[in-house]
Amino acid sequence: MHQEDVLFVRGTVVSSKIAKRGIEVIPSMIEVVSRAETPLPLDPRGVQNTLLETRLNWRVLDFRSEESNAIFKIQSKILQSFREFFSQRHYVEIQPPVIIASASEGGAELFSLKYFEKEAYLAQSPQLYKQMCAISFEKVYCVLPVFRAEKFEQPTHLNEVRQMDIEESFATDADVMKVLEEYLAYSVKIVRDECGELLKLLGQELDPVSLPLERIAYSKAVEMLRKNGEEIEHGMDFSKTQEKKLTGLVGKKAFFMVDWPMELKAFYAMPNTDGKTCRAFDLIYDGIEVSSGTQRIHIPSLLIERLKSKGLNPDNFRSYVDAFRYGAPYHAGWSIGLERLTMKMTGRENIREATMFPRDRTRLTP
Amino acid sequence: MHQEDVLFVRGTVVSSKIAKRGIEVIPSMIEVVSRAETPLPLDPRGVQNTLLETRLNWRVLDFRSEESNAIFKIQSKILQSFREFFSQRHYVEIQPPVIIASASEGGAELFSLKYFEKEAYLAQSPQLYKQMCAISFEKVYCVLPVFRAEKFEQPTHLNEVRQMDIEESFATDADVMKVLEEYLAYSVKIVRDECGELLKLLGQELDPVSLPLERIAYSKAVEMLRKNGEEIEHGMDFSKTQEKKLTGLVGKKAFFMVDWPMELKAFYAMPNTDGKTCRAFDLIYDGIEVSSGTQRIHIPSLLIERLKSKGLNPDNFRSYVDAFRYGAPYHAGWSIGLERLTMKMTGRENIREATMFPRDRTRLTP
Repeated sequence: MHQEDVLFVRGTVVSSKIAKRGIEVIPSMIEVVSRAETPLPLDPRGVQNTLLETRLNWRVLDFRSEESNAIFKIQSKILQSFREFFSQRHYVEIQPPVIIASASEGGAELFSLKYFEKEAYLAQSPQLYKQMCAISFEKVYCVLPVFRAEKFEQPTHLNEVRQMDIEESFATDADVMKVLEEYLAYSVKIVRDECGELLKLLGQELDPVSLPLERIAYSKAVEMLRKNGEEIEHGMDFSKTQEKKLTGLVGKKAFFMVDWPMELKAFYAMPNTDGKTCRAFDLIYDGIEVSSGTQRIHIPSLLIERLKSKGLNPDNFRSYVDAFRYGAPYHAGWSIGLERLTMKMTGRENIREATMFPRDRTRLTP
Repeated sequence: MHQEDVLFVRGTVVSSKIAKRGIEVIPSMIEVVSRAETPLPLDPRGVQNTLLETRLNWRVLDFRSEESNAIFKIQSKILQSFREFFSQRHYVEIQPPVIIASASEGGAELFSLKYFEKEAYLAQSPQLYKQMCAISFEKVYCVLPVFRAEKFEQPTHLNEVRQMDIEESFATDADVMKVLEEYLAYSVKIVRDECGELLKLLGQELDPVSLPLERIAYSKAVEMLRKNGEEIEHGMDFSKTQEKKLTGLVGKKAFFMVDWPMELKAFYAMPNTDGKTCRAFDLIYDGIEVSSGTQRIHIPSLLIERLKSKGLNPDNFRSYVDAFRYGAPYHAGWSIGLERLTMKMTGRENIREATMFPRDRTRLTP
């Protein structure tokens, strides 16, 4: 018999001092279900020494490596913890569409497709839909794939990712930040409690998250970086390197960045009374942004004003704006990138390691 | 104040004999959070008298109707019951991609899109991916949107739907049918137990499912229909009307149809020893197919033979076939259409009523 042959074994389980898992099976019957061809294109026992490209090409064998197996079992647990946390709190799971008629954020590039006689797009975010649901169901959550047609070059970006989203009525940015940090702490606790063996296999020490997290104003973060030799002006976004550096300066594994300048966030972010910043926040975890959110604008006239000041045409957002004309509570929400959170919780360097079937500019298979 | 105005009320809750829900709030403070414009394009209190088209155009108001609210809270519960059922049984949740490089089943029409320099497609099924995962993780499940570019005209079909899928190694068609009927019974029980009030609102009597379900061979079903005046030949698929009629003849709300002719099922269905039928099954629930599945072919040479006999080119399925060369246990799986199951469990006639944001040939908004 060879490695990766599939066997059906009937026998007696006995304890063993030599076997790695502490047990052995003394077989009374062995049936070969399927023989593996030789040589294997990838040896699941030696993936550490294999190029990531080869591992992704032979995902079916790579999944059998202790490493990948552990990563995706932890990812499964993260998802489970997300849904449990929010369904226990009576959030309703919603089903936003993937195919949409127009750009929901007016910003990043969209994949387009021919939809019968029309042009359609793949949603880059469930933004409008979760707001529509929240103003009627009050508290909602969803997990769904989203798409960005950008030519990313970083190890932290993909063109198809999964997002875990919530949206909540009668809630401010402060309210949903509290929910977010509570979920992060819960999720880390669940993975620590239930995936201890898997984390050990990955050589990953996962520290518990203590609450409340620090809230650091955008302007203070810019100051801190400037004092430490970074070239950043007020009004500029942070680079990945700067996010990492900031984490060192703050001295915390997880913290919030709040009070962002309006020009750096989407048109639907609720302005602060200073007229310059808005009720937007990013959650930085282990040196990288894993989640961002805002309190939304629920007042149609203000939405139209903000659309115009971003150079967008309100006519293209009519159904979005109209949704708030017939009774809309104030509301807020956020989304977490599943693969990014998995990458960080499992201690990986490349988001592809934490994505079962990654899609980037050059990779469409398997 | 007008209907749909949003209020923030502080006050004392007292019991009331007049109020519909048995309680009243005696307010000490009332704040108007948001005023609704008048007239409303749709009155959530009177949706029974409103065209479905209008309701779908104004989903944000329709969601506030008792009816839609109940339907989607039940849908949320169905999903939750699915994930609970399978995660408790140690199935791993997987994340198949939406954007794929080629047709996974070689059959129904696909939506295509420009993916940077390449042509890509929206997955019509996670078939290949769940098989790849099952032969390495053993037992897997997923919920994800799937797409078919067919010009459907029926009230039971949409172009974007959500599927609940499982795939399991060391399992035959009989094994996963048992899991399927157990899940159906569990799901109905959970909805009955936890959504009793909502079902009542919808005027829906939901009967418990008693197991085991009857298994009726395809050939017997054809015979039964022919005896009762239907024009159907062996080798023909059942129409929606025939599925309904058959349900009356069988006299059961739920049953399986098994042993389908190979020509009616996909190339990857494991043939029976008779050389004519295959290990495929449909689950009929309340007169309509809500789920179908098969034991899959795990033997590369047989897969190639079946591809050829379906007129498909094995070269286009190389990575699929190759996945089974390096150790593949026998395996089986199925998928349930979420919207269809919701439609039936909530007693609706049109799948659009059970889909938050339906997508059909003419509808892409909201």
